[in-house]
Amino acid sequence: MIKVAVVGGTGYTGVELLRLLLQHPEVDLSLITSRSEQGIAVADYFPNLRGACELSFSEPNLEQLQQCDLVYFATPNGVAMKSAPALIKAGVKVIDLAADFRFKDQKKWQQWYVEPHACPELLPQAVYGLPEINREAIKSAQLVANPGCYPTSVLLGFLPLLQHDFIEADSLIADCKSGVSGAGRKASINALMCETNENFQAYGVAGHRHLPEIKQGLRGLTDQNIELTFVPHLTPMNRGMHATLYAKIKQSKLKSATLSDDIQAIFEQRYQDETFIDVLPAGSHPETRSVSGVNMCRIAVHRPQDSDTVVILSVIDNLLKGAAGQAVQNMNIMFGWKEQLGLGTIAAIP
Amino acid sequence: MIKVAVVGGTGYTGVELLRLLLQHPEVDLSLITSRSEQGIAVADYFPNLRGACELSFSEPNLEQLQQCDLVYFATPNGVAMKSAPALIKAGVKVIDLAADFRFKDQKKWQQWYVEPHACPELLPQAVYGLPEINREAIKSAQLVANPGCYPTSVLLGFLPLLQHDFIEADSLIADCKSGVSGAGRKASINALMCETNENFQAYGVAGHRHLPEIKQGLRGLTDQNIELTFVPHLTPMNRGMHATLYAKIKQSKLKSATLSDDIQAIFEQRYQDETFIDVLPAGSHPETRSVSGVNMCRIAVHRPQDSDTVVILSVIDNLLKGAAGQAVQNMNIMFGWKEQLGLGTIAAIP
Amino acid sequence: MIKVAVVGGTGYTGVELLRLLLQHPEVDLSLITSRSEQGIAVADYFPNLRGACELSFSEPNLEQLQQCDLVYFATPNGVAMKSAPALIKAGVKVIDLAADFRFKDQKKWQQWYVEPHACPELLPQAVYGLPEINREAIKSAQLVANPGCYPTSVLLGFLPLLQHDFIEADSLIADCKSGVSGAGRKASINALMCETNENFQAYGVAGHRHLPEIKQGLRGLTDQNIELTFVPHLTPMNRGMHATLYAKIKQSKLKSATLSDDIQAIFEQRYQDETFIDVLPAGSHPETRSVSGVNMCRIAVHRPQDSDTVVILSVIDNLLKGAAGQAVQNMNIMFGWKEQLGLGTIAAIP
Amino acid sequence: MIKVAVVGGTGYTGVELLRLLLQHPEVDLSLITSRSEQGIAVADYFPNLRGACELSFSEPNLEQLQQCDLVYFATPNGVAMKSAPALIKAGVKVIDLAADFRFKDQKKWQQWYVEPHACPELLPQAVYGLPEINREAIKSAQLVANPGCYPTSVLLGFLPLLQHDFIEADSLIADCKSGVSGAGRKASINALMCETNENFQAYGVAGHRHLPEIKQGLRGLTDQNIELTFVPHLTPMNRGMHATLYAKIKQSKLKSATLSDDIQAIFEQRYQDETFIDVLPAGSHPETRSVSGVNMCRIAVHRPQDSDTVVILSVIDNLLKGAAGQAVQNMNIMFGWKEQLGLGTIAAIP
Repeated sequence: MIKVAVVGGTGYTGVELLRLLLQHPEVDLSLITSRSEQGIAVADYFPNLRGACELSFSEPNLEQLQQCDLVYFATPNGVAMKSAPALIKAGVKVIDLAADFRFKDQKKWQQWYVEPHACPELLPQAVYGLPEINREAIKSAQLVANPGCYPTSVLLGFLPLLQHDFIEADSLIADCKSGVSGAGRKASINALMCETNENFQAYGVAGHRHLPEIKQGLRGLTDQNIELTFVPHLTPMNRGMHATLYAKIKQSKLKSATLSDDIQAIFEQRYQDETFIDVLPAGSHPETRSVSGVNMCRIAVHRPQDSDTVVILSVIDNLLKGAAGQAVQNMNIMFGWKEQLGLGTIAAIP
Repeated sequence: MIKVAVVGGTGYTGVELLRLLLQHPEVDLSLITSRSEQGIAVADYFPNLRGACELSFSEPNLEQLQQCDLVYFATPNGVAMKSAPALIKAGVKVIDLAADFRFKDQKKWQQWYVEPHACPELLPQAVYGLPEINREAIKSAQLVANPGCYPTSVLLGFLPLLQHDFIEADSLIADCKSGVSGAGRKASINALMCETNENFQAYGVAGHRHLPEIKQGLRGLTDQNIELTFVPHLTPMNRGMHATLYAKIKQSKLKSATLSDDIQAIFEQRYQDETFIDVLPAGSHPETRSVSGVNMCRIAVHRPQDSDTVVILSVIDNLLKGAAGQAVQNMNIMFGWKEQLGLGTIAAIP
Repeated sequence: MIKVAVVGGTGYTGVELLRLLLQHPEVDLSLITSRSEQGIAVADYFPNLRGACELSFSEPNLEQLQQCDLVYFATPNGVAMKSAPALIKAGVKVIDLAADFRFKDQKKWQQWYVEPHACPELLPQAVYGLPEINREAIKSAQLVANPGCYPTSVLLGFLPLLQHDFIEADSLIADCKSGVSGAGRKASINALMCETNENFQAYGVAGHRHLPEIKQGLRGLTDQNIELTFVPHLTPMNRGMHATLYAKIKQSKLKSATLSDDIQAIFEQRYQDETFIDVLPAGSHPETRSVSGVNMCRIAVHRPQDSDTVVILSVIDNLLKGAAGQAVQNMNIMFGWKEQLGLGTIAAIP
Repeated sequence: MIKVAVVGGTGYTGVELLRLLLQHPEVDLSLITSRSEQGIAVADYFPNLRGACELSFSEPNLEQLQQCDLVYFATPNGVAMKSAPALIKAGVKVIDLAADFRFKDQKKWQQWYVEPHACPELLPQAVYGLPEINREAIKSAQLVANPGCYPTSVLLGFLPLLQHDFIEADSLIADCKSGVSGAGRKASINALMCETNENFQAYGVAGHRHLPEIKQGLRGLTDQNIELTFVPHLTPMNRGMHATLYAKIKQSKLKSATLSDDIQAIFEQRYQDETFIDVLPAGSHPETRSVSGVNMCRIAVHRPQDSDTVVILSVIDNLLKGAAGQAVQNMNIMFGWKEQLGLGTIAAIP
């Protein structure tokens, strides 16, 4: 059992993380902080936790946090970077679910999150917590930057073909659809039921903060020049993310008489040992609900009309493999436990 | 470990039951039958079960079923009663999630389900599987009739006040709202997305099949004459059931200076040892999502404007405490295990 | 053509009112005010109005308002009462869609809206704008208080039987379900998609502000003593309101051999000349979607199991017959036009 | 006034067409046929039409249909082609909302709709009813093939840039999202609330029937070779269609210092006289709800990161501009009326 704290547990990522940690056999959840809700019983705030959590939200307190083995930050962007240095110094492991430590280049952070980085000296040691790419580094990391939801679904989809040099990297397209919980749990007109229900729209086409994160990730997968068009959309549901990815197959590969089978095989082989990635049979269409509430990415790959364009369909639950679930997976790796510990894999349908 | 079979696993109750059984530490799920889907891999049919279930649907086969310790029927009404006698004779335990064994009076069955009962001789030994009322009988039962979803939410709401003779039983009102999964997983225009989404309506006001089941249950709780007005409604969501119950407080009780507190105390005391019933603090409004995917009933009780009318709010997930979850709870009791075995209690929000 | 202004057009009631007024053949919409959005083109704010509205939101300006024939207030409670006196004095007609002028008794206002009334002297002349009850008074009114959505659905449901002295008025129950647009268009966590979608719950059971308004309305229909239990619920959809009403039939009426037919006839006769009320055939279940976007109330009446309890099902669109539609209907009456002018009656399905 | 019949009025396209025709000032709707529902009052079948439609569904009767000025077919694919020849011969105008007359090449029909065409001799005179392309031909057409919903949203989006030779036609991508009403009103498990709500998925990636229709339309806009990747998705809402279109800008155009402005201007100029197409300001993201229930296409165009990829966002209501609304627009053109007659343009929000 390790002592774990969650800083900022009042959002959707936060409550999902609490749900997982409260059921995790190796975790003693000893502290949940929230400046705005301090003193309130967590189970009064989130009635789904009644009977499962005795804690109240407390004011963030460095001393108490330093006594933990692991501190999760489920805070807005820009919060973790202010507290992390003292925790790192004290030997505490840190997993940040926000964007603070995702960029290797502090200028990228400043450009997209519009404030200077508070601890650029920690960036070199921060590990981007996508286990399917960085498992070894995560094992020994003290500071893990949990990936964004869009980057997770897009990177896992492009990864096998980029690593096999099968596609042109300079004309990638990621058309992504997210449930509304991605907008967070804060008072905002844009995320109201009556603004999002029975409605579908794109947003942030000019430039979403996950764009540079995805591009940085893609660059780690290939030496090719990366050009990516990324269009996120809001879809009227609570949870779920669907990435529809388009890429041109390299001219040199088009000659294969078994091209579609080759592509399917590349995905199956690349992910055969990954517990949380499920490559569907050729011709499948993954449903977001099939991963709802579980830490899983399901992927299908198509070559419609036998053309030179490959279409990859990748689904995750934005709050699980796209946030809290991946954060628990990272913890399991950091502490040397079985990777699926505390992470169920069967979604409830419907 | 016991050997378990599920007859008819292709509906929403069925897939939810499979999800629970596949994760249950004492269950070896050895057989899932479906006449219409035989030969198809269960995980192809329900992609949420990929990686968790190796079985294919098989044709119902009495011999194989007789080798099980327990057979669940997740079939339409009228199916279990045809197969149950042979299983009972062979010493197999049976839990029927349909209505076949819920009535003590075979005429009621025939009246509401419009066909003669196939094995009225089994009705006396069938136990109505509402553990909060019949736990002792369930322990030694061989044949359990799993309650309907409306009856579960209504009976658990009225129970404490009826048993304490606090309310008039001859003017009860149950205004109930159900998610669409209650309509089952079958091709039907009425349950289409475009017929139910952005729509709310009552149905079956003249007489719903759960009415006589509720009345039979209420009669077991009091010697008073029972009159119940039951109005079910369809609400545009997948899961969840909300019963809003109204009753007149008995004249003799109205004198108490602490009447509202008395009523709250009656609920808290009656259910203090029940794992799956959560009485909320006075003044609360339970949310259906707080029990989504878990075997839980949350109840709040109100006396608005300090009048002589008591309002009870009772929520369950119609597929869990209203069906598959209660069926697993009954199994746990029948086999002497801890009642919460294999039944998580934290709903995922949102 | 009359000159019309809308004060406070940024909410859901406001935009619906704009939609109706922009298409009304006798209305010159000359002013739409909003303190917070002044200067912004209305069609930029509400893209559904692109091409239909050239106005920008302007700062409320008494002089300009006084030049109108009619001013609508689609503002939060407590705003209209501050501006109305000057408009009334200037001879302008006023329709307030908020609660400011709904109570005859200023103490009720103060009790439920928690501030003193700003112009109690206007209350006697204010007409409660439910045309099916007050049509004659509305014709000559200068100041109309547009009813709340719950009161409209409940009063229209109980009206015929109360006026015919058919039911006991001291044990009325109104179990009401509203779409989320009833919560308004303001930044609030409670009305977020992720808080309301796939969820159903009661709220305000202890006392909702529409309770005294309904009771005042009921008192106008009968000399009997009124006791009402009112439980509002939030249902996961944008629009629509369903009132399920319960009442005890008077002992003296129960002897009729044709009681159910009598009750049906009472409804049909009472509403036969009402354009915006549709009494469904006996045994029907009105759907909220059948009135979505139109100024219509559909009602069905049941006597389940031939008992002494009558169940009335009444549906409206909370934004139309429950707000903006009724406000236009009132305008049509006040200006002597055909009552259905500018008000379509066919809902779009699905 | 003209005499109009609707053949097959029981689907979602049918009821929407009825709603429009019943309110159209020049239409005498004299016949609505349905083999399966004959004898049933239309307003009993679709309660939203109560009070607006006195007709009952009748058996299709050639003689009666021949006495009409215009016959709409809102039938499944393959029905209209069997009845149309006799009507055409009798001088009746015909608008088919299904696919029977959309292909110029009868082999395409047979390939994608899997049966021989019943009247290939009519194909040459059938006009593809997309007014923004074929208005002149529609004016004098006797037989109009109303376009599919996906083709409408995609063709209107690509049209301006293809006609201006601004984009490469051999690498077009159309990532489209449709509400569930596109699946029609028929008993089917796939379109159930519990299969589609809280779920998002692609379908038909290998080849959807609208693919050849879109390609045929694109070929009419350019001499370039057409290659299109088309991926349709199902999104959890009743109505609405969002096409996200990707194209490479031609090398020769990239030199312009005002490229983004040029592109915006091309759209604005091309559609400046079109009543039912609304080009949004640069940087906009059209919402499907802004066209819900109205015959409108809203389009925005982006060039993210100033790259060589243009992104076009095009939204329609699949039942209006994607079906029934466009069918009425075509009728208005065929009979020489104002194009917007009977077609409102303000969507109701929310």
